Amino acid sequence: LGLARTGLRCKCININQTFISLKYMKNIDIAPRGPHCPKVEIIVTLQKRKEVCLNPESPWVKKLVKRLLKRKDQ
Amino acid sequence: LGLARTGLRCKCININQTFISLKYMKNIDIAPRGPHCPKVEIIVTLQKRKEVCLNPESPWVKKLVKRLLKRKDQ
Repeated sequence: LGLARTGLRCKCININQTFISLKYMKNIDIAPRGPHCPKVEIIVTLQKRKEVCLNPESPWVKKLVKRLLKRKDQ
Repeated sequence: LGLARTGLRCKCININQTFISLKYMKNIDIAPRGPHCPKVEIIVTLQKRKEVCLNPESPWVKKLVKRLLKRKDQ
């Protein structure tokens, strides 16, 4: 899965670059940079608890998170 | 803690409205709306594994998430 389990270093080893639609995402986990890891990490949980890392600097990822916070209960 | 443990309904019972600085946040968890819960939920992990829910529609929360994704490795 390309994901380190310990909390003492970066979690993401492989970064998924291909677009994933929000409807497949159960959860979006954002780990701010910190002493354990010098970069922001985004870990998304998909169906069947599959986890993938996304690139926080990818335009589509930024749009996705922005859209997520935008939608009211229309 | 005002947080439901099961995955079958909304996780956030109480929403923390007061501002929390990013430096106190170990993790930001965004749960998109879904069959289990009709609203987007943001659960932040603070020091000592304390978890609080934030209001996704609060301006300061939106700014916080936006800022989180903006910062390059300056």
